[in-house]
Amino acid sequence: MSLRIDLNADLGEGFGVWRMGEDEALLARITSANVACGFHASDPVTMARTVRAAARLGVAVGAHPGYPDLVGFGRRDLEMSPEEAEAAVIYQIGALRAFCEAEGVPLHHVKPHGAMYNRAARDRRLAEAIARAVRRVDPRLILYAQPGGELARAGEEAGLRVALEAFADRAYLPDGRLQPRSQPGAVFHDPEEVAERALSIVRDGRIASVTGEEVELRAETLCLHGDNPEAIRLAEAVRRRLEAAGVEIAPVRA
Amino acid sequence: MSLRIDLNADLGEGFGVWRMGEDEALLARITSANVACGFHASDPVTMARTVRAAARLGVAVGAHPGYPDLVGFGRRDLEMSPEEAEAAVIYQIGALRAFCEAEGVPLHHVKPHGAMYNRAARDRRLAEAIARAVRRVDPRLILYAQPGGELARAGEEAGLRVALEAFADRAYLPDGRLQPRSQPGAVFHDPEEVAERALSIVRDGRIASVTGEEVELRAETLCLHGDNPEAIRLAEAVRRRLEAAGVEIAPVRA
Amino acid sequence: MSLRIDLNADLGEGFGVWRMGEDEALLARITSANVACGFHASDPVTMARTVRAAARLGVAVGAHPGYPDLVGFGRRDLEMSPEEAEAAVIYQIGALRAFCEAEGVPLHHVKPHGAMYNRAARDRRLAEAIARAVRRVDPRLILYAQPGGELARAGEEAGLRVALEAFADRAYLPDGRLQPRSQPGAVFHDPEEVAERALSIVRDGRIASVTGEEVELRAETLCLHGDNPEAIRLAEAVRRRLEAAGVEIAPVRA
Amino acid sequence: MSLRIDLNADLGEGFGVWRMGEDEALLARITSANVACGFHASDPVTMARTVRAAARLGVAVGAHPGYPDLVGFGRRDLEMSPEEAEAAVIYQIGALRAFCEAEGVPLHHVKPHGAMYNRAARDRRLAEAIARAVRRVDPRLILYAQPGGELARAGEEAGLRVALEAFADRAYLPDGRLQPRSQPGAVFHDPEEVAERALSIVRDGRIASVTGEEVELRAETLCLHGDNPEAIRLAEAVRRRLEAAGVEIAPVRA
Repeated sequence: MSLRIDLNADLGEGFGVWRMGEDEALLARITSANVACGFHASDPVTMARTVRAAARLGVAVGAHPGYPDLVGFGRRDLEMSPEEAEAAVIYQIGALRAFCEAEGVPLHHVKPHGAMYNRAARDRRLAEAIARAVRRVDPRLILYAQPGGELARAGEEAGLRVALEAFADRAYLPDGRLQPRSQPGAVFHDPEEVAERALSIVRDGRIASVTGEEVELRAETLCLHGDNPEAIRLAEAVRRRLEAAGVEIAPVRA
Repeated sequence: MSLRIDLNADLGEGFGVWRMGEDEALLARITSANVACGFHASDPVTMARTVRAAARLGVAVGAHPGYPDLVGFGRRDLEMSPEEAEAAVIYQIGALRAFCEAEGVPLHHVKPHGAMYNRAARDRRLAEAIARAVRRVDPRLILYAQPGGELARAGEEAGLRVALEAFADRAYLPDGRLQPRSQPGAVFHDPEEVAERALSIVRDGRIASVTGEEVELRAETLCLHGDNPEAIRLAEAVRRRLEAAGVEIAPVRA
Repeated sequence: MSLRIDLNADLGEGFGVWRMGEDEALLARITSANVACGFHASDPVTMARTVRAAARLGVAVGAHPGYPDLVGFGRRDLEMSPEEAEAAVIYQIGALRAFCEAEGVPLHHVKPHGAMYNRAARDRRLAEAIARAVRRVDPRLILYAQPGGELARAGEEAGLRVALEAFADRAYLPDGRLQPRSQPGAVFHDPEEVAERALSIVRDGRIASVTGEEVELRAETLCLHGDNPEAIRLAEAVRRRLEAAGVEIAPVRA
Repeated sequence: MSLRIDLNADLGEGFGVWRMGEDEALLARITSANVACGFHASDPVTMARTVRAAARLGVAVGAHPGYPDLVGFGRRDLEMSPEEAEAAVIYQIGALRAFCEAEGVPLHHVKPHGAMYNRAARDRRLAEAIARAVRRVDPRLILYAQPGGELARAGEEAGLRVALEAFADRAYLPDGRLQPRSQPGAVFHDPEEVAERALSIVRDGRIASVTGEEVELRAETLCLHGDNPEAIRLAEAVRRRLEAAGVEIAPVRA
């Protein structure tokens, strides 16, 4: 049986005149794009252009909803009620999907952003609100979620197709959670090391944790970054290594 | 052949904790609702509640996109490029429609708001951008537009179903345009007079202009207001008079 | 020695076309106004009008900074860094004070709003950021704070004049903290009872807590509300009772 | 009599995580900074950092108020009433000045941004609203304005100290107005040519217009740009040429 993985990345995270990330370089390397929806980043014109570019290259388009906090880039925790969170996610999915329709491509998945994504891994009520939002707009949408978190559980309970996500450039704790970014060694920078870790995740479903102990890490999609030229080299290394190992690189299947 | 008219009104124009308009009273009297989409008014929770209330009462739901100007309520002209306007309208239609899907009702129409609506009647490039946005999201959506304006023309050229709108409580100039609100006598306040004018539009396709001269005014939908208790009495009078005259009051047909 | 108390209330909490509260009725009854600064509510025109109205009636004007969260009215907790909080408070104080200067009145005090105020009572880093902001803009500004909280402590340590605030219409726990609004009996509605509690605070520096046990409650300012006509009646009752008891009602002294 | 000129530039025009411009490189070359105030760009933290950096280098700090349009970077015309414009400018000046006070430096001047600045040169009511705002907050503030426009006139009529501004890298029409950017040749890119034009303005009070004809151009301040490394080289060339010619480069005098 052949190995298969999706490579996803956050895209379209500029705002107005302000640019962010190497979107074009990333689009050539990934198979699914998490497109910002105007709450933590982006605006209608940026969304239109980002979806058009993704559609042209055959990259699957997903919604990347976040907290309504442009100035904080959706990275600050915000105490939303479940009703507020559900409505915010419905709104953002709908907005993004309209650009997909304008370009004649389907909306493929939903992956929450930043503080919303992090909190959804541990806050059951938020996780359920997000899963409910996705199901109510379109139950065929795939929900990207961290393994072992509340969001994955809530998505499955809501009957959604859940795709687990791993990070090849992040250190994992022995219990399978990510080591916080604030701690030293939380992020790997060497392209060959990250590529090797990516292959380990895809081929073995395991990764060496910070203690050296191996931890199970089953994922259908790997998250890549595009903040700077170094990130692009890293994405390139991951892609090359996986291809060399005969891994099929393609969007998560519905 | 039986007479038929749609009664529409702007709904869900609160924002956060702030309320506006007598939405419940209006919903009981209208057949189609123009629901604000978060740019000139409203927010995701307000949209969710407004669409739910409309769906429950069988009122057809339309998107009411506006300029991105909450503090100005979308009433101040803003110089958007055609690309910006098209993307802003796509975004808002998509966001609103997601709430329709969450409630299991179709999105019925699109009616731009305030300064965007007014400018679209005379600015060909804006009108075409709006028509293009509607068509690209869903060519079956009905576009509400003022008779004789650029928006109606652009909608037809884009192959959209255009429904012309009239105002029973506004004075018309002999050339069929609305008398500006800034001028005395621009707005009628007496419920019976407004009801009579409504019937004249529906039955005769004509209305007495400010000069006394009759002007042709063919419309499939009449716009009602819900800003205050007086407006509700006026809506009630219009509805009663039309019903008494045997006019069928129902949403614009696709 | 004569008794003295300041009566404060939140003012100018509309936004754009949206109104909130009975500002005119409140202004006639209070001695200091906490004026929203555009982050949780208000906008430049509303601020200009509110400061002008307060100045005309001789009501002392204070800044009422909040979290940058219009749609949540500053009532949702937001994880700001100390640098972000300090800058947000400096910004809002400065903006409001410019309207004071335009009207020729001094800026009198600063009272944080909603979730920021609540968190500042228990979060030392936020409290210190706020106190630092006030001191850096103008060390003569009076800081309103809850008794016994981190904000009062931080204000004093920063060398600021701190005025403690009490709520005559809220139930207190035996440890001097407010009973959460979510619990039954947290808010008193009877004007005479609230007036009696106000007098107890001002005259005795004590109030009956929810257990019946008396708790010390020293305050220089009482917070009144103006959300609805009932609130105005309550403010009126408080003012009358205090005046009848010979209490001097005047802004907090510098 | 010795020649003297101020070199100004727009600064602090990032927003949240998004950066813009080469602020550090610019600060080393200019004598007055127009600091964005959160309406068309910037946010409280960016303002705090920008004012601190300017203060450290002895660069005079000015407020750079714009239309409330982050997504459009204040470059789109917006129909504000005089009351709205005046309040928006008061608000922004006050916010920026609070950061000056926090850093212990005076606020030096006010220069409107983008579409507001352009419109203020030709729209008398807007120009008067801006001048009124400046005077009401602090009549000692210097108002930067284009020569021959409504803003310069309104500032003088309001009793303000007006400093005229010229652009060494922009083409001028024979009537002294700027050639619109949309036209070819509107912007000069060669550092030596721009430096020569700067010297011509400062030394002769004249510049060659697009027709070759010389036009009078008296200015106390030249506007430099910092959008990209090329702009920095240009600023450097201007500064060097002026210094070589013995021109004193210093902030506009009160």
